[in-house]
Amino acid sequence: MNAQPQATPRQSTPWHVVIIGGGFAGLWATRALARAPVRVSLVDRGNHHLFQPLLYQVATAGLSAPDIAAPLRHILRGQRNVTVLMGDVVAIDTAGKTLRFAEGEALGDSTLDHGTLSYDLLLIASGSTHAYFGHDGWALDAPGLKTLDDALEIRRRILTAFERAEAEADPVARAAWLTFAVVGGGPTGVELAGTLAEIARHTLRGEFRRIDPASARILLLEAGKRVLSTFPESLSHKARASLQRLGVEVRTGVAVTSIDAQGVVLGDNESIAARTVLWAAGVAASPLARSLEVPLDRVGRVFVAPDLSVPGHPGIFVAGDLATVRGENGKPVPGVAPAAKQMGTHVARAIRARLAGKPAPAFRYRDHGNLATIGRRAGVVDLGRLRLSGALAWWFWLAAHIFFLIGFRNRLVVLIDWAWAYWSYRRNARIIVGNTRESGTPR
Amino acid sequence: MNAQPQATPRQSTPWHVVIIGGGFAGLWATRALARAPVRVSLVDRGNHHLFQPLLYQVATAGLSAPDIAAPLRHILRGQRNVTVLMGDVVAIDTAGKTLRFAEGEALGDSTLDHGTLSYDLLLIASGSTHAYFGHDGWALDAPGLKTLDDALEIRRRILTAFERAEAEADPVARAAWLTFAVVGGGPTGVELAGTLAEIARHTLRGEFRRIDPASARILLLEAGKRVLSTFPESLSHKARASLQRLGVEVRTGVAVTSIDAQGVVLGDNESIAARTVLWAAGVAASPLARSLEVPLDRVGRVFVAPDLSVPGHPGIFVAGDLATVRGENGKPVPGVAPAAKQMGTHVARAIRARLAGKPAPAFRYRDHGNLATIGRRAGVVDLGRLRLSGALAWWFWLAAHIFFLIGFRNRLVVLIDWAWAYWSYRRNARIIVGNTRESGTPR
Repeated sequence: MNAQPQATPRQSTPWHVVIIGGGFAGLWATRALARAPVRVSLVDRGNHHLFQPLLYQVATAGLSAPDIAAPLRHILRGQRNVTVLMGDVVAIDTAGKTLRFAEGEALGDSTLDHGTLSYDLLLIASGSTHAYFGHDGWALDAPGLKTLDDALEIRRRILTAFERAEAEADPVARAAWLTFAVVGGGPTGVELAGTLAEIARHTLRGEFRRIDPASARILLLEAGKRVLSTFPESLSHKARASLQRLGVEVRTGVAVTSIDAQGVVLGDNESIAARTVLWAAGVAASPLARSLEVPLDRVGRVFVAPDLSVPGHPGIFVAGDLATVRGENGKPVPGVAPAAKQMGTHVARAIRARLAGKPAPAFRYRDHGNLATIGRRAGVVDLGRLRLSGALAWWFWLAAHIFFLIGFRNRLVVLIDWAWAYWSYRRNARIIVGNTRESGTPR
Repeated sequence: MNAQPQATPRQSTPWHVVIIGGGFAGLWATRALARAPVRVSLVDRGNHHLFQPLLYQVATAGLSAPDIAAPLRHILRGQRNVTVLMGDVVAIDTAGKTLRFAEGEALGDSTLDHGTLSYDLLLIASGSTHAYFGHDGWALDAPGLKTLDDALEIRRRILTAFERAEAEADPVARAAWLTFAVVGGGPTGVELAGTLAEIARHTLRGEFRRIDPASARILLLEAGKRVLSTFPESLSHKARASLQRLGVEVRTGVAVTSIDAQGVVLGDNESIAARTVLWAAGVAASPLARSLEVPLDRVGRVFVAPDLSVPGHPGIFVAGDLATVRGENGKPVPGVAPAAKQMGTHVARAIRARLAGKPAPAFRYRDHGNLATIGRRAGVVDLGRLRLSGALAWWFWLAAHIFFLIGFRNRLVVLIDWAWAYWSYRRNARIIVGNTRESGTPR
């Protein structure tokens, strides 16, 4: 089964397509291969597909983890040409057309085929991770938000900070527990800061005896000139105003130069005591791209060919956050869910074309617009000609997100949770779990 | 504020009642002191009250953690005489009437009053933990079920075992991943084994390509003569028959003599290869009881006076799983939620009596019956005269548990989850999180 893919497949066994990553790109590619004459193996480190646009709601205790995730093998149970495997791919041998999994028996390993899996065609859709711009040590004190584990860790830190403030007798130490710094003014940072402000001002009201949670200081720190820089300037200004109305201190044009357990340092000498720092400032591509030994862009993404294959490796495709590709307008395709879905679907189309001996079409990104939410009844929507802000944008955002959430039950329960949260300002997932998580050392 | 409690309080500041533990006993005591002229501090290691009777549903992926837990300070937000504190009490100084919290800044500590908290009256309701009968090393390979973290760890192991089996090429190793041993035939063991059988036979059906999850072997191992030994013998037999119909191998009269990562050994030489072993065999009282330096029973519980105070320490009460007390029939009061609630309420009554200068009444346990569930439409109910089994018992169990679950939203969402699970056999929380938990080393 290690023959080169040919223009006209004449093999008795179908080609084996391996897809790494069960995010939007990988899952959409898998589904689009449902009727293709191939065997598909979908490999993911976890067991679930995650609806990442709502991850901040898990981090801020509005939703529980299973509300926004579904087991991959459950989603794909009806697609008979797919095998779902949980495993951690650590290297790609392009010459031998083989993947290598993590060694030993730690969770996430696979003993499958003695730790390897061979492929005929490969799609790498392992996405991105946090980037600390060379300051990897910051990860400990400023967790980022990519996985469910990250979200539960951030939730634990936010809820614990208020608990520690309540138990703290010293006013200076207490103020540091009640100061939250969100680094990065993109959609995730804006969502986190806005929701944090709501939690402090509304959700926790009347529940503490020694502190006033509404006195919490929430800072949104952005190195660039404005928040939501991928949106038109007018919407950035509206988002900033919405955040300020919620009580968030928005600071733009400030560079974070140091982060530790006590807080952040801005520029040369402005030190802010904040026991909770959240990182929403940068992403880097999955390190798996490096084993391809092809040119990568500044953040480690693969420059792909127009059909999303890897130049020099016609049997390997890259899709989603790991690929760097330009849309028809010449601008880079953004790292958002709709783009990942479109790329995944395109790779399936390219594979089917190759099976049929036809040339693969070029990927065309269809930009359906850009949404962000800020807090209760505040959001911004950019659909090109149509721009919305405020409550209308929020309702648009809500409808779009519930519509796209996978699985009937999830949609219903999320809707109930939100309706309840909306009327009562309550957040139903305010439960601290996982006190002993290794990577987020308690402080 | 360190004066001895007196028969007639003449103090200008109200007595400070400290309650350790926000479980059924501690929370019910706190609530029953709502109108008493005292200051109450409720201290818990976590931030939530847990509806423990449904914890097995979180462990078996039927419910998510926030479904069965609510923040203590949210529950008590309207009760103005209560301060909720998150902290880990490690010692009680009965002479100085002071509690000491864990040192340092690890999560769960409190910097409150430099790590101490003084009290006038104390209720210890810190419950119980797992007991491995002198084999503490078993904890690593056979986790027990007491906290939400335990439940998420057990869920992770169950779901991961099926994933590992799917990826495993060797049939012997695969069979070990598909063998689940539940140690202990009490209500928790019966619930876990029954639900595991349902997951294997129904929930996962059609989702795997290399294994048949229905071929999983589920063993329930009980050292005594019968399962559910606190129930009448006729109901034990019915429960056993229900379990066997679900496909559980019920083994009674077998002693587990060894547990490691590869499985269990029964008696002298019967070795069973099982990569997932769950512990439901024994409980021990919270170690906090030891710092009282009073006589404890076999499992470390405090022999309390009829008013639930500690002999020799009139200002200290013990309630819930940590207390050993006999009912009017001479039998020990069982370690169940209704008994804990009754004890908590009784302690509040005793404190109010003491404030009024009256003698405290003796605790009387009102036994409302005994319920257990086995699986879909199977349960046993013992209400003394009335005994139910099968589907009727299951419906009774379901109604009782939803009724007692705290909080409107939880009840509604749990009901939806169950209705959905009932019709579809699906389980909505099949998400693996917390891969890096320290205490449950991945294997």
